Amino acid sequence: MIYFDYTATSKPNEEVLALYQKINADYWSNPSSIYKAGVITNNLFQKCEKDILEVLNLQNKKIYFTSGATEANNLAIYGICNNYLNQDKNIITTKIEHPSVMSCFEDLEKKGFKVTYLSVDEKGIINLEELKQNINNNTILVSTMWVNNIVGTIEPIEEVIKIVKQYPRCKLHVDAVQGIGKIKPTFDFNNVDMFTLSSHKINGLKSSGALIINNKINLQGVLKGATQQEGIRPGTIDVALSAATTKALKLITASRDKHYIYVKELQKYFREQLKNIPNVLINSSEDASPYILNISILNTESETFIHYLEKYEIYVAAGSACNSKIKKPEKTVYAMFHDERRAVTSLRISLSYVTTKEEIDEFIKRLKEFK
Amino acid sequence: MIYFDYTATSKPNEEVLALYQKINADYWSNPSSIYKAGVITNNLFQKCEKDILEVLNLQNKKIYFTSGATEANNLAIYGICNNYLNQDKNIITTKIEHPSVMSCFEDLEKKGFKVTYLSVDEKGIINLEELKQNINNNTILVSTMWVNNIVGTIEPIEEVIKIVKQYPRCKLHVDAVQGIGKIKPTFDFNNVDMFTLSSHKINGLKSSGALIINNKINLQGVLKGATQQEGIRPGTIDVALSAATTKALKLITASRDKHYIYVKELQKYFREQLKNIPNVLINSSEDASPYILNISILNTESETFIHYLEKYEIYVAAGSACNSKIKKPEKTVYAMFHDERRAVTSLRISLSYVTTKEEIDEFIKRLKEFK
Repeated sequence: MIYFDYTATSKPNEEVLALYQKINADYWSNPSSIYKAGVITNNLFQKCEKDILEVLNLQNKKIYFTSGATEANNLAIYGICNNYLNQDKNIITTKIEHPSVMSCFEDLEKKGFKVTYLSVDEKGIINLEELKQNINNNTILVSTMWVNNIVGTIEPIEEVIKIVKQYPRCKLHVDAVQGIGKIKPTFDFNNVDMFTLSSHKINGLKSSGALIINNKINLQGVLKGATQQEGIRPGTIDVALSAATTKALKLITASRDKHYIYVKELQKYFREQLKNIPNVLINSSEDASPYILNISILNTESETFIHYLEKYEIYVAAGSACNSKIKKPEKTVYAMFHDERRAVTSLRISLSYVTTKEEIDEFIKRLKEFK
Repeated sequence: MIYFDYTATSKPNEEVLALYQKINADYWSNPSSIYKAGVITNNLFQKCEKDILEVLNLQNKKIYFTSGATEANNLAIYGICNNYLNQDKNIITTKIEHPSVMSCFEDLEKKGFKVTYLSVDEKGIINLEELKQNINNNTILVSTMWVNNIVGTIEPIEEVIKIVKQYPRCKLHVDAVQGIGKIKPTFDFNNVDMFTLSSHKINGLKSSGALIINNKINLQGVLKGATQQEGIRPGTIDVALSAATTKALKLITASRDKHYIYVKELQKYFREQLKNIPNVLINSSEDASPYILNISILNTESETFIHYLEKYEIYVAAGSACNSKIKKPEKTVYAMFHDERRAVTSLRISLSYVTTKEEIDEFIKRLKEFK
């Protein structure tokens, strides 16, 4: 198979899986138990927390392990906003967020929050002027992606930080799922109040993600329960999954810059091969993440082309896998170009450090043969 | 080690772990992807849903896989109650629920719901008269455990079903975590509107549980996100964990009745050995689940005794591991006997089909030696 959907999920790393297995075989005690076996597993858990903060060069931060990025995004957004229900507050996000951010804002809008959805330009970059115009002392939350999951746009987080910092009551949340382990940040994550990461996008395991927050932030838990993770995220602590996430993050971060150079070269090669193919438009900007290349094949709706490629075991996506079963124009591509045709014919091709030029050649061959 | 804390967590079954490993190695595609690899993993997921309903002999039910029982309990309770915010509704639970149920009710009480917490008798059995007196046409939810996690009391769910059925608007939720795979129900789960199960309590894996509901119920999701699991429980579907849960449930159910007889015999043996030991009171009633034996050692606070036993690598619990780090009288034991001494000296010993008489003998020996 030729897999071009690493943005949806990635193959678990064998070392990560082996570690998960080992902890489940040897350290399966409940880390909340007060006897020795529990203390040992709890120490392993605390080591995971410490290691993740270290790998990411973070100080004065807390980490909450969650069931994935969806829950982490919910925890960040409701965790802040539920402190301000019925207080007529403003919150700000963008038009190109993942459904797990967008759905929270839409729900909060129904609950009385005034929501601003920032527009984006043709590169997918959020409108910072709009942010400046809409943020005020009544704004309690700004949530924006770092790297867009559909076209790969890298958002100007350092500029967003500067703007939000002028409003001390306002917290900044960054969905960093598609950037962590892939892109070297040009800003300091220590200046971001809260950010989300996912394990299975970086060769870790599913059902595992984290929200990392500034340790001065007063967050309300979304799930209610016992006292694990300070009661902010109750539920039996899963040391095996947490360790798997930690391992995956360490491994990907160690090779991040080497991988980046390789994938950047691949993307350049891919773009060259796409030149002069009729009806093909490239939607991702040249300075976007090299891990994502979004194109539109104007004479073919996304789904038709996906099923055509599938015959050759080539796998690409139309948009986020999360909403793949609902047919509608791809939201991010539409927000960039306001062109419905372009949005219903868009394909997200995502690359990895294991992608080869031969795989790209095969894609190009099938694209050229397509009638 | 001599492990007597199976109620907190259990060792993952090797077959379950091997299946988890295999799916992560061979079927790691995102099941929401529309191409063939995604469809194959999605078919595996649908097979899990089908198999679980089959193992439990359920018809007309839907299953939502969650990150565990805490999330499943939250989904059941908020899933119903969030439909009725600010409508002055009544909800009913018991004084002996797990924190993941109790905390939801306490939160909903703050949000304006009128909450009844049913008392229990000296066997830990909920007061059905109190239920009858408090339920009315304004009651939208009753939530009760099936098998208590501290003393093992088996609640009279068939009686609860009869009472709740008289109020068609009222839904019944049962936390079945400590019963499923261990106790043969004397009622039909088809008559329960919603119930919760956990994987790691039955030799499955952590971070995995499920809420099973009557398919006519209109539930609001607690987490907001994309369209996975009908949008009721968004987040990337984890086929490997779902399959692990399914496998664990199948395996434990196949041996359930054989295990029950064995553990019942063990419990009887344990009780006999405890006779005539000074200062020891048995808190679990004789008709409780044989998997749990709760005792009080009146001259010793729980934590002291746990640390004494730990020197011999014997592991027991004071109460729920979930709240083990907060020192206070054990809530269920207190609700049964209204005796603080008994509640601060209580120990939860939990048994398994892998427990041996020799392990019990060793416990008794150390108990007798204790000064």
